Amino acid sequence: MKDKIVLAYSGGLDTSVIIPWLKDNYDCEVIAVVVNVGQKEDFKSVEEKAYLIGASKFYAIDKTEEFVEEYVFPTLKMGGVYENKYLLGTAMARPVITKALVEIAQKEKAKYIAHGATGKGNDQVRFELGVKALDPTIEIIAPWRIWDIKSREEEIAYLEEKGITLPFPKKSPYSRDENIFHISHEGFDLELPENEPNYDNILQWTNTVENAPDKGEYIKLEFIKGIPVKLNDETLSGSEIISKLNKIGGLHGIGILDMVENRLVGMKSRGVYETPGGTILFYAHEELERLCLDKDTAHMKQLLSQEFSKLIYNGKWFTTLRKSLSAFGDITQEYVTGEVKIKLYKGNMILAGCKSPYSLHSESFSTFEGDNVYNQKDAEGFINLFGLPLKIESLLKRPVKLHE
Amino acid sequence: MKDKIVLAYSGGLDTSVIIPWLKDNYDCEVIAVVVNVGQKEDFKSVEEKAYLIGASKFYAIDKTEEFVEEYVFPTLKMGGVYENKYLLGTAMARPVITKALVEIAQKEKAKYIAHGATGKGNDQVRFELGVKALDPTIEIIAPWRIWDIKSREEEIAYLEEKGITLPFPKKSPYSRDENIFHISHEGFDLELPENEPNYDNILQWTNTVENAPDKGEYIKLEFIKGIPVKLNDETLSGSEIISKLNKIGGLHGIGILDMVENRLVGMKSRGVYETPGGTILFYAHEELERLCLDKDTAHMKQLLSQEFSKLIYNGKWFTTLRKSLSAFGDITQEYVTGEVKIKLYKGNMILAGCKSPYSLHSESFSTFEGDNVYNQKDAEGFINLFGLPLKIESLLKRPVKLHE
Amino acid sequence: MKDKIVLAYSGGLDTSVIIPWLKDNYDCEVIAVVVNVGQKEDFKSVEEKAYLIGASKFYAIDKTEEFVEEYVFPTLKMGGVYENKYLLGTAMARPVITKALVEIAQKEKAKYIAHGATGKGNDQVRFELGVKALDPTIEIIAPWRIWDIKSREEEIAYLEEKGITLPFPKKSPYSRDENIFHISHEGFDLELPENEPNYDNILQWTNTVENAPDKGEYIKLEFIKGIPVKLNDETLSGSEIISKLNKIGGLHGIGILDMVENRLVGMKSRGVYETPGGTILFYAHEELERLCLDKDTAHMKQLLSQEFSKLIYNGKWFTTLRKSLSAFGDITQEYVTGEVKIKLYKGNMILAGCKSPYSLHSESFSTFEGDNVYNQKDAEGFINLFGLPLKIESLLKRPVKLHE
Amino acid sequence: MKDKIVLAYSGGLDTSVIIPWLKDNYDCEVIAVVVNVGQKEDFKSVEEKAYLIGASKFYAIDKTEEFVEEYVFPTLKMGGVYENKYLLGTAMARPVITKALVEIAQKEKAKYIAHGATGKGNDQVRFELGVKALDPTIEIIAPWRIWDIKSREEEIAYLEEKGITLPFPKKSPYSRDENIFHISHEGFDLELPENEPNYDNILQWTNTVENAPDKGEYIKLEFIKGIPVKLNDETLSGSEIISKLNKIGGLHGIGILDMVENRLVGMKSRGVYETPGGTILFYAHEELERLCLDKDTAHMKQLLSQEFSKLIYNGKWFTTLRKSLSAFGDITQEYVTGEVKIKLYKGNMILAGCKSPYSLHSESFSTFEGDNVYNQKDAEGFINLFGLPLKIESLLKRPVKLHE
Repeated sequence: MKDKIVLAYSGGLDTSVIIPWLKDNYDCEVIAVVVNVGQKEDFKSVEEKAYLIGASKFYAIDKTEEFVEEYVFPTLKMGGVYENKYLLGTAMARPVITKALVEIAQKEKAKYIAHGATGKGNDQVRFELGVKALDPTIEIIAPWRIWDIKSREEEIAYLEEKGITLPFPKKSPYSRDENIFHISHEGFDLELPENEPNYDNILQWTNTVENAPDKGEYIKLEFIKGIPVKLNDETLSGSEIISKLNKIGGLHGIGILDMVENRLVGMKSRGVYETPGGTILFYAHEELERLCLDKDTAHMKQLLSQEFSKLIYNGKWFTTLRKSLSAFGDITQEYVTGEVKIKLYKGNMILAGCKSPYSLHSESFSTFEGDNVYNQKDAEGFINLFGLPLKIESLLKRPVKLHE
Repeated sequence: MKDKIVLAYSGGLDTSVIIPWLKDNYDCEVIAVVVNVGQKEDFKSVEEKAYLIGASKFYAIDKTEEFVEEYVFPTLKMGGVYENKYLLGTAMARPVITKALVEIAQKEKAKYIAHGATGKGNDQVRFELGVKALDPTIEIIAPWRIWDIKSREEEIAYLEEKGITLPFPKKSPYSRDENIFHISHEGFDLELPENEPNYDNILQWTNTVENAPDKGEYIKLEFIKGIPVKLNDETLSGSEIISKLNKIGGLHGIGILDMVENRLVGMKSRGVYETPGGTILFYAHEELERLCLDKDTAHMKQLLSQEFSKLIYNGKWFTTLRKSLSAFGDITQEYVTGEVKIKLYKGNMILAGCKSPYSLHSESFSTFEGDNVYNQKDAEGFINLFGLPLKIESLLKRPVKLHE
Repeated sequence: MKDKIVLAYSGGLDTSVIIPWLKDNYDCEVIAVVVNVGQKEDFKSVEEKAYLIGASKFYAIDKTEEFVEEYVFPTLKMGGVYENKYLLGTAMARPVITKALVEIAQKEKAKYIAHGATGKGNDQVRFELGVKALDPTIEIIAPWRIWDIKSREEEIAYLEEKGITLPFPKKSPYSRDENIFHISHEGFDLELPENEPNYDNILQWTNTVENAPDKGEYIKLEFIKGIPVKLNDETLSGSEIISKLNKIGGLHGIGILDMVENRLVGMKSRGVYETPGGTILFYAHEELERLCLDKDTAHMKQLLSQEFSKLIYNGKWFTTLRKSLSAFGDITQEYVTGEVKIKLYKGNMILAGCKSPYSLHSESFSTFEGDNVYNQKDAEGFINLFGLPLKIESLLKRPVKLHE
Repeated sequence: MKDKIVLAYSGGLDTSVIIPWLKDNYDCEVIAVVVNVGQKEDFKSVEEKAYLIGASKFYAIDKTEEFVEEYVFPTLKMGGVYENKYLLGTAMARPVITKALVEIAQKEKAKYIAHGATGKGNDQVRFELGVKALDPTIEIIAPWRIWDIKSREEEIAYLEEKGITLPFPKKSPYSRDENIFHISHEGFDLELPENEPNYDNILQWTNTVENAPDKGEYIKLEFIKGIPVKLNDETLSGSEIISKLNKIGGLHGIGILDMVENRLVGMKSRGVYETPGGTILFYAHEELERLCLDKDTAHMKQLLSQEFSKLIYNGKWFTTLRKSLSAFGDITQEYVTGEVKIKLYKGNMILAGCKSPYSLHSESFSTFEGDNVYNQKDAEGFINLFGLPLKIESLLKRPVKLHE
């Protein structure tokens, strides 16, 4: 019996060419697996293509809801934002895709998992670390690090050599990754950071800020323990909330990012991201936390959210550290319950009020009016002890000349 | 000879009422000092008022440029942003004001410094820690923590009792603090976080996003070693750059914040901040750093910027830790030199290209094209060792059932 | 009915004098509560004394096992050590004592809790923060911050004035705190950090290193999920393990600390601590973790252990942040299971072997011998990508003169 | 003209065999460089050996003092200790060695640098990152990752094949690295963490604790701005202080470590380290800092010392981040001046008094006696505000049943 290779298949040219190449080089059968994490795709035609090109079997696995509930929301709860900007749309999707691949590989008793990520990016690391963590006995094949194919033209030539002449749509000049949470764009004129992005050509989900409506729109989001549960008073599943927010946010030009980021593999790269719904969610969640988290917890969480984001970016979802940080995060979210109103208008998210039954902001505590909780007379003692180290240091070290 | 008290004087009702109160309670003469950090104020009329109310002497000290160069720019270099949002406009100004007060107190051989901050806010701490650090022999008087005056009406009554009937302009319902960097608004309907801010009533410097022009505007900022030196190709002083950016940014509705923050003294408070120029500066600086800082430095600096912001917020400018963190920051800025283009449009700052002679992003490194610096074949070894701990842990701990 | 005050009572002079003072000043009845956390004390005679002096009721509550299981072991799991030295013996005990006081206050419907901590130390903060967190409706009385009594002589005089002439044993010149985990010593000649401690006078539990036996002794500790469960193959309760380790460790001069620490209230203080059993436990646990924790987790935990220790030191046991950090810690301990052998000899703990079924150190991985897990050829790729940022920075920034 | 290769040469078998191998494989001449960082070595006989085996040129460069002053002391100032235990003796030496190699390579216009580190350790990374940072145009050759030689026997056979029959002393079963700061031991029976180290066979510099004298010895160390300048009242150079401390410390059994550490390349390894002088220095410095650093600075430095240690361990000496952290550290050391007395006795360092003209511990501040600096009455206000968040959270969230 031939060895089996499970291939992370997308239906595009880059992963299609892998099928015959694997069969040529490994004396194996290739099981093409497309994991649905919300990308817009005609999975039926992907299946047909897979078989035509030589796959022995095809799976389309829907992991959209799992992606949202078990990867996006835990990241939301920890406030994971890479380098203070990138919402990790691709990075969060890789582990759920990898998990699906490993499940099928185990079911099919496949010896290998193959992926179509290049040797310069983060995704190869994310796929492979996932496999190592979930089943280290499965071997990994990364054709783009092995073969000599270097361009679209060479890919087509390779397929034609194998007698395969499928119509692959003229690829965009941008390299893209799409799922329910975001769509990213890299390459072409974006490669030079000094180039202003040509948003009219780039954007797929979102209006440019200029093209967004002249009239703003209010939305209301409700969270329970850090998880969004209602949009505009309607109870929705996680993926429904994101989908609806994508539409509304996209209309109003929300969530377009242009950034130079530090890849794991030692280089900087520049990308444009559209994350309309996610941007709104992360913003609303952060504002609600301002009401509900005490200062110590909020400040520590802000530090740990950076560490969390680096783990996710670097493909370390299935690690003890990620789980430990999530356990930390879960406790912090105990009282992050309440609602946030936001006005969306031409790229702006304008906070329009926030409330929570567990708000630690109490009007009476912070105003001038006398109350039983805060006694202004306490401030003197507080300042004296809080500032005591400065005073001691100054007294001991400074040659004070005054009043002599 | 009577004791002297140096009073941080603003010309407003809250600090005016302190003058007779001090004279009543301390058998002293009161030296009124107004420190100019860029607030819009008629210092001549403030002087007249001070003398009318009973000050024995008056100083108006211009610290605007010092404020910008020695407080704002070091904070910019460290990326200090409190709780991921507040640009520290008031917090950065307090130490330079305190320094001016101490200088005059030492020159005048004054025994006391008095300030008009209330017993519920952060500013009392910032003033007093500054005095303790700069000259611990000077005693501090904080009338608002001592007396029983509780309202504007009682203040006016107190003055009238002393025979003083000056026309104090009807105060806004909001409590404000202004300097060249920002203007803050607290109180009144903002006290309830669930209230949407009534921006038409609140904003002083900035158009609402809706009222901003329908046509965007490009600006170009140039930095040398982390310090802004040119705006639109014109070499300007620090305060000139901020003033110009305030005007342009204010026009386009940039830099309006609405936030609930954790005060040092244990409560949450809500404020609206306008920081048009500062918001642009911090944004541009951060984007330039994405090009110029290596990943390790960038990530560590992101962590330390939080610690830095907490120090500044908490009034610890004149401390060893603040100086040590600034020394860290200065080295990181060695190559943060270059230019950033931004399109301002209805509240949005849209990055329109960034370049630096020290950019660590090199087009050739990150593209598909073969090069001598990045070898895709290295990725396999990298991933294998980077992922080795996951693999070992998985091998050792997991009962792997597969392939048996 | 008179108000009730629950007093944290020790039986010593300092808390005894509080009883008549409270009755004099508050028109109340005083309920004396002594909480047993393992200090050596004749609780019967403490009870007699309490009633003689005027207490209306007396409780002796044994919290020793709860102290160990719910305060010491969670701190052990998080590796909480304050300022890299102090094992938090007093700090961990304060919350469990406070919890007992609040429980009785609630049961007795007492209006106040009173404690005998001075106004210069950490303990006042720990007691009062605990009360605020557990029941903010209970008011706190801290006589030592209120009255004018300043010395032992004045205390005795005050009691005599009230007609109370009890024999209080001549107090040691050192101020001490004792529980099952440690005994601390402060004051007297220790106040000057330049004085060498006179250990022969100070030590209560531990031999000086010089007096320890000339022959070492091996012990074996076994942990399950970070918790010690067996000593020398005998299954014991937490308090039994600590008690036995105290004896063995004390014999061999283990766990004597002399340190200057930063108090919460702004001063430095110097103390000597004896923690024989705890020192062994923390050491053994850390060594086991070296085998069982992966690097990422270990390094992050090392950072968080500092934050944890500061929380505990500062009296913030009953906070969301403490609970969140413990949740983090609990996940990390999942596989911290195994045994540690240590030779105790004249103050030294000499590691004598460590093993775990979950050890991530595998002999075959780290030796020269070829294996399937580590491939030396991977190292080149790893180094090239790991060092790529340095190379890029060097190429771009340095004027390289060589080879031209 | 042939290409030149600069080889990091030790005189041992492992680097000797590289000389003919390089000449065989690269058509080059080999320049053997031994860098003296304080290892005990007969450099004359190393030179003879190098020429006999086929080196075209030989350099012995003394970098001992530079190593101490520019690598060890900056690490001391930052308190860099890897994984809370390892004093980085090898890791600190690699960059100074690499710098010497690069200097000679540049002077000799060599195309390559070769080293004898294996493919499983940290040193390959440290050497190669140093070269990349200092001169990225120089290529690196790591024979141990390339060839098939696997054992001492194969090395000797290879040399004999080339007609070289030099007497290499029977190697110890342990793999060792020695410089002025430490000597490390790995391999053989240490490979199993459950084995107790056979210290009588292992130790080279240090008495076992049991064999140390029965009488202790006092030493006094004096520091200026964090740098040790005097030992027992004698002004000495850095290397003299370390050498003398090695002798005294070695006599008393100080500084023997046995640890399992996390290597950079993904594995755990176990080693025994002897660092008698360094252990005393780091201890004394830390104790002096307890007197001289304020709490905020001390706590932040404790966090950053971990990051610093990781950088050094991972070979990132010549990076912006390392320099930035050192700049931080330098400011913190401004007042770390004073003297520390320690009694050395059978493996123990017993603090015997510490003083500094800049001590922030003042007897009068921390005692019961009334003073002008600390006012016990301030404590109530401090605690009330410090504990306010706990009280608010408790009031708002807890259903308080009491007193109703």
